Parts: sequence; structure tokens; C-alpha cells
Amino acid sequence: MMMFRPIFASLFGATLFVATVLPAIAQETLPSWSDGAAKTRILDFVKATTTEGGEGFVAPQDRIAVFDNDGTLWPEQPYYVQLGFILDRVKTLAPQHPEWKTKEPFKSILAGDLKGIARGGEKGIVDLVMSTHAGMTSDQFAKIVTDWFATAKHPKTGKPFDEMGYLPMRELLDYLRDNGFKTYIVSGGGVEFMRPITEKAYGIPPEQVVGSTILTEYAIVGDVPVLRRLPKIDFVDDGPGKPSGINKFIGRKPIFVAGNSDGDAEMLRWVTAAKGPGFAMIVHHTDAEREYAYDRESAFGKLDRALNEAERRNWLVVDMKADWKTIYASEH
Amino acid sequence: MMMFRPIFASLFGATLFVATVLPAIAQETLPSWSDGAAKTRILDFVKATTTEGGEGFVAPQDRIAVFDNDGTLWPEQPYYVQLGFILDRVKTLAPQHPEWKTKEPFKSILAGDLKGIARGGEKGIVDLVMSTHAGMTSDQFAKIVTDWFATAKHPKTGKPFDEMGYLPMRELLDYLRDNGFKTYIVSGGGVEFMRPITEKAYGIPPEQVVGSTILTEYAIVGDVPVLRRLPKIDFVDDGPGKPSGINKFIGRKPIFVAGNSDGDAEMLRWVTAAKGPGFAMIVHHTDAEREYAYDRESAFGKLDRALNEAERRNWLVVDMKADWKTIYASEH
Repeated sequence: MMMFRPIFASLFGATLFVATVLPAIAQETLPSWSDGAAKTRILDFVKATTTEGGEGFVAPQDRIAVFDNDGTLWPEQPYYVQLGFILDRVKTLAPQHPEWKTKEPFKSILAGDLKGIARGGEKGIVDLVMSTHAGMTSDQFAKIVTDWFATAKHPKTGKPFDEMGYLPMRELLDYLRDNGFKTYIVSGGGVEFMRPITEKAYGIPPEQVVGSTILTEYAIVGDVPVLRRLPKIDFVDDGPGKPSGINKFIGRKPIFVAGNSDGDAEMLRWVTAAKGPGFAMIVHHTDAEREYAYDRESAFGKLDRALNEAERRNWLVVDMKADWKTIYASEH
Repeated sequence: MMMFRPIFASLFGATLFVATVLPAIAQETLPSWSDGAAKTRILDFVKATTTEGGEGFVAPQDRIAVFDNDGTLWPEQPYYVQLGFILDRVKTLAPQHPEWKTKEPFKSILAGDLKGIARGGEKGIVDLVMSTHAGMTSDQFAKIVTDWFATAKHPKTGKPFDEMGYLPMRELLDYLRDNGFKTYIVSGGGVEFMRPITEKAYGIPPEQVVGSTILTEYAIVGDVPVLRRLPKIDFVDDGPGKPSGINKFIGRKPIFVAGNSDGDAEMLRWVTAAKGPGFAMIVHHTDAEREYAYDRESAFGKLDRALNEAERRNWLVVDMKADWKTIYASEH
């Protein structure tokens, strides 16, 4: 019998472990968030808005939560993910455009001179977007983007982009959804660039992505109806455009909003100025070692006036270094 | 004991009735639809797309169903509901606009001459929309619309508009939702005109309404951020605009689409041309007695080339008079 004792003991121990420790782990909320004021404020808000009969209760259909994407759900350094896509597209398309060898900003990109892009100014950026995002059908563009995400890697971490979502934010999305919130992305990025990846990266379906759009035109090619992407900006979902975008696409005012840069300031202010409950948070990039540290001077995701506003309006400023135990799921 | 016998019998009978007849009634699908080819085609399509392992199976997240509004879910005769709103708004605002007494198309409206509006042409209509739909904030406009719907009545039936939805279409919406479909409105009407009424009338929440939009501008009034409605059309969600609107707002191709006029033709064709299952139906207004009878010559909801297309492309044409037992819920 003696040989069975340890087996029995370990089986018993395992049972005890399963019965006591595991459920406690499973039930921990926002496990990648450090215990502290940031986590507590989030938990308190969700508790208040979901407690029936409570003063701050919000009916499930009105629990709309909106999240900026670049810098809020995944990194925007060393440059926006969509800019990485553009750079790769320019290289791919270059053989069909011999004129790019001498024309900015294409010339700089092909020479690997990223600073040269900035010299082209805003017109240069628009030229880049139009020459890489227009001229094909919506279906063709979705395939180009999907194919790109299948192989593209973040320049610093070397991870594919569907693994670049911040784990604490993914936990927050799940937590809000578990509490009856409907989660949306509201980003300055192109809506048709984001939609092929958001379900996999964040559990957010295409119809819950609000972003910048270019004009499309219905056309019959052969006998097949298609939507052609025209080289013309339709809507810029950034800054003051974000409240307009939310109003246009969603048609309800969110009660929870997360951003990280000045381009989110109007959205945060619009949400928190509304009557009734409204929670606004800013992800502050303070972790040069595990991610990046930047704010008031950054070329991408500049956080300056929104940081001033945050203090004045009591928005939660999340200190990435102190408040997040883990940055990426793959660290586990 | 004899006196208890009938009671017992009737109790027993009631139990029997509850156990056998009621469940059968409760389970009848699309009860306001006549048994026939139209109903059968709808049932067959839903069965095929929801039968796991079947050839035509569609995953729940891809079960998107889109519905035109005017003439498809509620009447568009004797004129569009939104035009009724405009006429009332012009009368309400007239005291602030003495110049309207001599300026078309306002003059005609104030004189009760509806035909005069037509003489103003498209520019007249745009002037009407701009002078009644712009110049206020989005919140103010939502309140104006909500207040109007609270008292407005259909000119022929005298019913409030949340009772003007066609019962067979409401049943169809419920049936699709019960089968995992997500239902959307895709209408040429103004999105902010429809959103305050669609939940009550059709069980469709604001974020599932796609429509025409006017530009909005973020502004600070006092210390309060608002969205100002500008007198400028942003997007016309009609005809070839409907596929673009679906692509922009929803970002998935629907598999079920319902319309009733030439303005829906491109949307129906775009959906049914896609690979995989696609169901298109047209509501044909054939019932002059219970509703209206019109098609190729109608000023509102002209159905001409879409009717030709329907035959060629095997779209279901619903004959309102023959296929619908009941038009409105209040007939019961």
C-alpha cells in the first residue's frame, strides 16, 4: 500500500489545488494590472454601472466602450503599423512605378531614408496613402492587408501584429464585454486596414471598427459589381473627427473611452462632458525598457494637451510601467 | 360531485389545449405570411444557412441581414415619412422665417401645395433638408425627431409611426435574429432621423442603422463640447451609395437583403453576386386596398429596373396582397 500513498496524496493535493487555488486564479480580474489606484478606478466604474438599482447603473444597450488603436491597444512606435504597411507596399509596387526612383516621398522610402518622408510633409503622406490604398476594389484591398498581416513583423519585437496587442488592454476589453459592454475601436487609422486584424487581435468584429475612410465607388466590372477604392479621402477619424465618427457610425454616446494621444482629446472630453456616467483613460507610455517612453515631444502619438486636460478633468492616466505587470501575452 | 365534473373537464380541456394547440401556434414561423412560394423560399434559405455541416452553412458572425426602410419596413406613401417631418418642421419654423412666404419651395408648403415642392426640383429639396435638419446640435436634433415621432401620425391610417411597420417584415426581422442573424437598416433616409425610432419600431438599435449623413462639426459651446449639424451633405446612402454605405459602416457583405425600389437595385445585386449564399427580396406594393399599389410610375419608391432585374437574377418578389395575410400589427 505504501507506494500508493504518495500517489493518493498528490492526487488529493491536486484536487485540493484545483478546488481552491485555480478558481481563485480564474476569477482574478485584470490579472496583468498591478493592484493600485488605476485598476481600482476601473473596477469601481464597472461595478457602479452594472449594479442594478444603483445610482450609476447603465442599461446594457447603453454600455458602449470605445478604444483608440495605435498606442492604446498596440504600439505606434517606432512608427504606426499602417505606415509599416505603406513602406512595404511602396517596395512591392516600385517595379511598376519607375518614376518613384526620382520622386519624393517614394525615393526616400526606396532608399531606406525614413526621415525623407517627413520632408514631403502632409502632401507626401497623402500621396503615399493614395498610391498604396486606392485603385483596387475593397475585396482586393482586404486581401492585400490580410496577406501583409500574415507575414509582417513588428520592427523591434519581431512578433506578428496579432500578438502585439497589450495584454492588459485585451483583459480590459474582455472584462468590459463580460459585463455587457459593447467594445469598439475608434481610430485615425484606415477602417479597411484595421478590419482584417481586429477580431483576431482584440476580439472586435469588423462592424465595431470606426476609422478613417476613403471614397468608394460602385462599379460593374465585366458582369460583377465591385466597390472601387478612389484616391480621395472621405473622412478623417482623428481629433475633432472622432466624436463625429462615433456619432456617425455608432449613433450612441459611449460611457467608457480610452486613448493615448492628443488625437483622442476631443473624444475623451465629449464622452466625459455628457450627462450621466462617463469614464476616460489615457495610456501613458512610460516604459522605455519593456515598450517605449514618450509623450509631449513624440512624432507619433504626441501626448501633450491631452495630458494637461487629464489632470483638469480627472481622466485616469495609466502609467504603463507601474500599472501593467505584463505588456504582451507572449511574455508568459 | 357532479358540479365539479364540468370544471374538471374544462380544466382538463384547457390543459390539453395548452399542451397541444398553443405550442403549435407559438412555434408557427412567420404567421402573417401566407403559405406559399415566398414564405417557403425564406424558410429554406434560413434553414440552409443555419444547418451545421450543410453545404450552405454560414457562421453566425457572417449572418448579416440588411433592410431598406421606406417601402420595405414601413410605407413611403403618400410621401416619405421624413418628408412629413420636413413639412411639419417648415410650418413650425415659419414664424422665424418671414422670407419663406415668398420663397419656394417653402411658399408652396405653407400654402399646402405639395405639388409645388416638386417644381423646386432637387435644389428645392436640398434647401428643405438643410433648413430643417442642420444648424442645431446632434443632441438637439435627436430631441426634435423624438418629439415629432411622439405625436406624428400617418396621413392615411392615422396611426403613430412606431405602429406603421409591416407586421410580416417585423416577423421576418425577429425570425432572422432568432436564427443568429444581425439585422441592419440600410436606407436613403437620414441616419439621425431614423435612429430615434428604429428600436421601438423594428427592434433595431441605433448602431445598426446605416443611412444618409450630413457633416457634423465638433465645437465647444460655453464649456460644453457638442456636435453641430452643418448644412452640407456628407453621404447619400441610396442607389450605388448603398453598397458603399454597407462597406463603410458594417464592413461585411450581407447574405440577406430586402428592398422595394430602384434605389435598392445595386445593393441587391452586390449582395447576390458575392460568392456563397445570398438572398435578395423585393417587397412589391400590390395592395391598393390595405396599403398602396404602385411600381414603375411612382414618384416615391419607383420600382422599374429592379423589377426587371429581379426576374433575371431570381430575386424573390413578394406580392404584398397575396403573400401577406396582415399588414399592420394593430389589425389584430
